[in-house]
Amino acid sequence: MSTLVGVDLGGTNIRAAVATGAYSHAAPALAATPGGEGPDSVVEAIARCVAEAAGGRPVDGLAIGIPGPLDPRRGIVYAAPQLEGWDGFDARSALRERIGCDVAIHNDANLAGYAEWVAGAGRGTNDFVFITASTGVGGALILESELYVGRTGTAGEIGHLPLSPEYPACAEGHQGCLEGTASGIAIAHAARRALAAGERTSLAGLAPADINGRAVQDAAKAGDEVALRIFTAAARNLGRAVGGLINLFSPEVVAIGGGLINAGDLLFRPLLAAVGEIAFAVPAEQCRIIEAELGTDAGLVGAVAWVVRSFGGPDIDDPR
Amino acid sequence: MSTLVGVDLGGTNIRAAVATGAYSHAAPALAATPGGEGPDSVVEAIARCVAEAAGGRPVDGLAIGIPGPLDPRRGIVYAAPQLEGWDGFDARSALRERIGCDVAIHNDANLAGYAEWVAGAGRGTNDFVFITASTGVGGALILESELYVGRTGTAGEIGHLPLSPEYPACAEGHQGCLEGTASGIAIAHAARRALAAGERTSLAGLAPADINGRAVQDAAKAGDEVALRIFTAAARNLGRAVGGLINLFSPEVVAIGGGLINAGDLLFRPLLAAVGEIAFAVPAEQCRIIEAELGTDAGLVGAVAWVVRSFGGPDIDDPR
Repeated sequence: MSTLVGVDLGGTNIRAAVATGAYSHAAPALAATPGGEGPDSVVEAIARCVAEAAGGRPVDGLAIGIPGPLDPRRGIVYAAPQLEGWDGFDARSALRERIGCDVAIHNDANLAGYAEWVAGAGRGTNDFVFITASTGVGGALILESELYVGRTGTAGEIGHLPLSPEYPACAEGHQGCLEGTASGIAIAHAARRALAAGERTSLAGLAPADINGRAVQDAAKAGDEVALRIFTAAARNLGRAVGGLINLFSPEVVAIGGGLINAGDLLFRPLLAAVGEIAFAVPAEQCRIIEAELGTDAGLVGAVAWVVRSFGGPDIDDPR
Repeated sequence: MSTLVGVDLGGTNIRAAVATGAYSHAAPALAATPGGEGPDSVVEAIARCVAEAAGGRPVDGLAIGIPGPLDPRRGIVYAAPQLEGWDGFDARSALRERIGCDVAIHNDANLAGYAEWVAGAGRGTNDFVFITASTGVGGALILESELYVGRTGTAGEIGHLPLSPEYPACAEGHQGCLEGTASGIAIAHAARRALAAGERTSLAGLAPADINGRAVQDAAKAGDEVALRIFTAAARNLGRAVGGLINLFSPEVVAIGGGLINAGDLLFRPLLAAVGEIAFAVPAEQCRIIEAELGTDAGLVGAVAWVVRSFGGPDIDDPR
């Protein structure tokens, strides 16, 4: 069996694992992502992490998820805000040269969605929408059993659908997009505005730096009314977006992952109510809106499944 | 050559034409859509219109565009607000039985988008978004060179993306969806609200029944400031939706048709500005946003192209 490695590259950590099946893998190797030194040092760290995962065997193929919009066909990263000097970087060529094997690159949220489709909440479907809502909001589209990337390779940016122009801009400057209305950052922003307006909330006891999406979620769970109102508004915005996606795609499953789903019913009750206000009855009735299953492993599982799909021989089943 | 007929069924008229090529047709036959008598009388009128178009030849295949959400795979109409008694109607079986040939049914906006992809603004592309904005807002998605319909057959409802919760509901009850913020009906509604609020506008000289999207468009063209403000807001909402669709699909072309495009720059200038505020630079730069080319013929051309695609032999080129 050839040695195929999947890599999940984040702004903080690199994880690499050898594929042991269509979407299963051996214990991953872990390394820190070098900061502030440009792409060469990150490529070097990836290569070492891959070598550790491979246990000295030559690597026959590599797939890597990268946090930013990129073109998987040309192997070029358009932008990666968490990685210094990666804008316009030819990551595929650099990795191919350093590691000496075939390389496929892909957007990390797309690979996480692919993992959920192959091995998680979307398995067995033809048309599947994946949304991950945590600090930011990302997603992936599986349409007619293919990961859809569009002309430039950047498709699936569910977080940047326009949702409500009353909200401020996201980090990318898109006023009132889904990420600007329902991400952890947006939730924290709304909490800070409420505090600045003098609203009475338990969040007032926190240091400004500690007010994040998680803190608002915890306060809402504990019954804080301001936090509950803010979190519910975010959940409704996410639900309106899901409703629009159901009208647009009529998918079999919409799976929602990321930190927001830790809120359970606090998220899903207002979310499902908002879906019902926007989605047509027929496609809504035939779509299951469920939690993603793979958690923080989704990115690595997706990279493993993608390396098998891209470079796997007949000795590993195609995961599709 | 076999006799293949495309039909465009509207709430007012039926048009039927024999295919003469992959997407060309002979002069269409025209009939009035019978109102208030249920589906049988409409099927009868379609059959006579088809017979007239075919000039007495037996018909080998039929494709028909129907104004409402439907399932092209099962041949069932879910709902058709403009046709009495068509909700849940098995239109394919009824037409097949009455006319005695193979029948394909499809949503009219989807066929109009298919026509634009085959023979109009989207030709030569793999990934194409079609939007028609007039009384309502409809659309179609061509993804990876296929008309995308999703699990239930209803996909492509671009008009029902959530856009701005501040706006009222559309006729389907979806608060602040694109149709509720940028259709002719929404524009007329905003004009009536402005009049009720006592705003000074030339629209005050019209009878209430004459205040429609076209009247607001004309007043805006003539320099009426209230009408211009209302029309510009609709154009911006449409532009935000286009920006979101670019983030989602990274299409090669977005084509916009329907009555709103008669406004020319009055529509496209604010629309393109709003696209720029929502869309990522890379997919936006590689997407052309243009006027649809086929006008009110798009539905019939689409039905003709679809009948050839569905039932055409080697004597007619596949339009794809």
